Amino acid sequence: MKYLIDDALVVTMDQNMEILRSCDVLIDNGIISAVGKLDAEQKQNASVINASGKLLMPGLINGHCHVPMTLMRNFADDMDLQTWLFNYIFPAEEKLTSEDIYWGALLGIMEMVATGTTCFIDMYDHMNDLVRAAEESGIRAQLSRGVTNFEDGSDFSEHKGLNEAIDFYRQWNGAANGRITGAFAPHAVYTCSTDFIKAVIKTAQKFDAPIHVHLDETRVEHEDCLAKHRKTPTRYLYDLGLFDRRTVAAHCVWITDEDISLLKDKNVTIAHNPTSNLKLASGVAPVPQALSKGVNVIIGTDGASSNNNLNMFEEIHLASLIHKGVNHDPLLVNAETALRMATTNGAAALGIKNLGIIEEGAKADLILVDMDKPHIMPVHNILSALAYSVQGSDVYMTMVDGRILFENGEFKTIDKEKVRYNIQKCYDRLFR
Amino acid sequence: MKYLIDDALVVTMDQNMEILRSCDVLIDNGIISAVGKLDAEQKQNASVINASGKLLMPGLINGHCHVPMTLMRNFADDMDLQTWLFNYIFPAEEKLTSEDIYWGALLGIMEMVATGTTCFIDMYDHMNDLVRAAEESGIRAQLSRGVTNFEDGSDFSEHKGLNEAIDFYRQWNGAANGRITGAFAPHAVYTCSTDFIKAVIKTAQKFDAPIHVHLDETRVEHEDCLAKHRKTPTRYLYDLGLFDRRTVAAHCVWITDEDISLLKDKNVTIAHNPTSNLKLASGVAPVPQALSKGVNVIIGTDGASSNNNLNMFEEIHLASLIHKGVNHDPLLVNAETALRMATTNGAAALGIKNLGIIEEGAKADLILVDMDKPHIMPVHNILSALAYSVQGSDVYMTMVDGRILFENGEFKTIDKEKVRYNIQKCYDRLFR
Repeated sequence: MKYLIDDALVVTMDQNMEILRSCDVLIDNGIISAVGKLDAEQKQNASVINASGKLLMPGLINGHCHVPMTLMRNFADDMDLQTWLFNYIFPAEEKLTSEDIYWGALLGIMEMVATGTTCFIDMYDHMNDLVRAAEESGIRAQLSRGVTNFEDGSDFSEHKGLNEAIDFYRQWNGAANGRITGAFAPHAVYTCSTDFIKAVIKTAQKFDAPIHVHLDETRVEHEDCLAKHRKTPTRYLYDLGLFDRRTVAAHCVWITDEDISLLKDKNVTIAHNPTSNLKLASGVAPVPQALSKGVNVIIGTDGASSNNNLNMFEEIHLASLIHKGVNHDPLLVNAETALRMATTNGAAALGIKNLGIIEEGAKADLILVDMDKPHIMPVHNILSALAYSVQGSDVYMTMVDGRILFENGEFKTIDKEKVRYNIQKCYDRLFR
Repeated sequence: MKYLIDDALVVTMDQNMEILRSCDVLIDNGIISAVGKLDAEQKQNASVINASGKLLMPGLINGHCHVPMTLMRNFADDMDLQTWLFNYIFPAEEKLTSEDIYWGALLGIMEMVATGTTCFIDMYDHMNDLVRAAEESGIRAQLSRGVTNFEDGSDFSEHKGLNEAIDFYRQWNGAANGRITGAFAPHAVYTCSTDFIKAVIKTAQKFDAPIHVHLDETRVEHEDCLAKHRKTPTRYLYDLGLFDRRTVAAHCVWITDEDISLLKDKNVTIAHNPTSNLKLASGVAPVPQALSKGVNVIIGTDGASSNNNLNMFEEIHLASLIHKGVNHDPLLVNAETALRMATTNGAAALGIKNLGIIEEGAKADLILVDMDKPHIMPVHNILSALAYSVQGSDVYMTMVDGRILFENGEFKTIDKEKVRYNIQKCYDRLFR
């Protein structure tokens, strides 16, 4: 399929932050094939998308999510972490069936696609159902089966979770024209024994696969790790060699200055989840400090049960605000930085070179934002408007790999009515 | 005009937080005349608004704003307060004409109305142009001419600003069926001399008028006041008698525990502006501490040049998140508290008894929220959904004083095209 996006305001997100006005963008077979003023010959046979009054930018990359948990949106709020996890989330998760995972994931993907997310990095269970939703919807995703094991003293060759993770990686890594990639996901230092982490590292090495891990989310995790291992969670995993693989480390709320240096040393990406960290009262991650040392920081929503949205424009907004306020410095995390965290930095975290940017040869993961709204006028500064004023609901069109998934309020690959019906069915069975 | 809102999910915001399902609400001549299951006779001659799948709640009250500054949205971001104020905002404000104020205010009111705000508390200059926009649009507002004076030693009978404030109050307080009320607004302790504050208090006493003031927004304001008066800004204004009048004090970021007791003693309302305080790096106001001492706290957006939106659902969201995170306590500012701060507490701040609540005899300032959206499903908990998941863009209908101002994306009292055209004209003249 060949598309011409006609007369857009293009925020390229290239190294110079070039912004192109009244620009045409040609998409051919999933790739951006031309950017600029195009002649009639180039435009031939292309489906035209009129982008007057609209802004084209790379799609947003959600750096940390548990998308099936969308089923538990607004299910357990305003409670302490222990009550939330042990009295509500864990018991509910035990009851989840294949159907729940599939429909919950589709619901979350609908929200992401409608609010401009074209790719998400996820860790959960029941991966065959999750990946079915991702594959069918057309969204890009790096998916991993989260694994836990509390005891040492085994070679883990019979470990159910790890074997499922291996099977999943084998079957799905690189599937759907490369839209679906895999990773290995030792859940966290407090849910994985030392030997088990070593086994996961060995497995990831064998497949040359990346890592997705929760890291230093809460004060309890930090202090327990210090007490048990006499090391911070970061130092502990660093010494075990986990970070020798390409890694996305979610949260990093309690990391020290030395931890930041270790993460930088191994090119670990921090996935910053501002809403979730505030809502669960974990705290505020030292993102400005990490950025100033050159660490790659991306933005995630976390699951809808601790957010309660999967709306990356909301996270961009919050990531740009919170650090200024708590550090009393209005120059921290400016608009451009926040936007990079949600686009180019996400592509770097995934190791995909031609993603998160608008230029010839890049993957056509793109969104159109309708700028003709009272709450965006007047547009003094385009990057400020994107970071501080634009809402997820201003997304007009979402394209992944050159395929339109959402346009003018309509889902092109997901049956909204069917999702609504089945979510209600799952909800009634699980929670009524 | 008589309206029947048919089959709504009604969040009454009454003392018991009663929520009514499949409920009818009758509105007659600007007042809610019946709530519940109504018979055919009661429904006679009423225009029917079908509210199936929608949630009806009291309209949101924006507790602190400078609405004409919407013209300076995204104009000056990511800079320190001094540069922002002295190099950008003040020079721009000096150039503002009547036309700029009128169209800037209308643009801001459009955003507010479209995102569920039915009333706003504002302080600015050029009040005759601002009030024209408010009056024509049909929104409810408490408006005040902000006044400043740096020198003592005068009786201020010839003070231009104060005389304009008096004229404005005389002409407009109680106008438009009581929709427009007035207040007096000594700008802040750092922009008003002691004698001038005394003169404003005396004037407000004479008219039995309320007060709107900026209070303890920044560390500099706090420390300068301590150095100059040997008192915190709150103690200083308390001793001057300002708080003997019904007062809305905006910001209160740096108030002490003793200050909180003083504010409680005089029933002063704190207008909390979470986005603005973060963006300008002022800090995080001690809202949980104020709430626990029984102080009335409301939520405001501040002006669009320091936010950069006038979207109260965004502020509710942030007010519910930020205090949990920075105080490491997930039980702080729960969903109900955040919603009260944006509704009932706002009505209390204004001293209007039959506002901010859905019950017989209350003013018909109401909004309908469309709950049939992927990002709100499933609705486990209605209050959580409203505080954490609903977006300003989910507002389907906004009614003030029984008049529909916005419905299904259309503005009923404001010409959107005319506002867009004139905003561009103002922008080109002022900033190009």
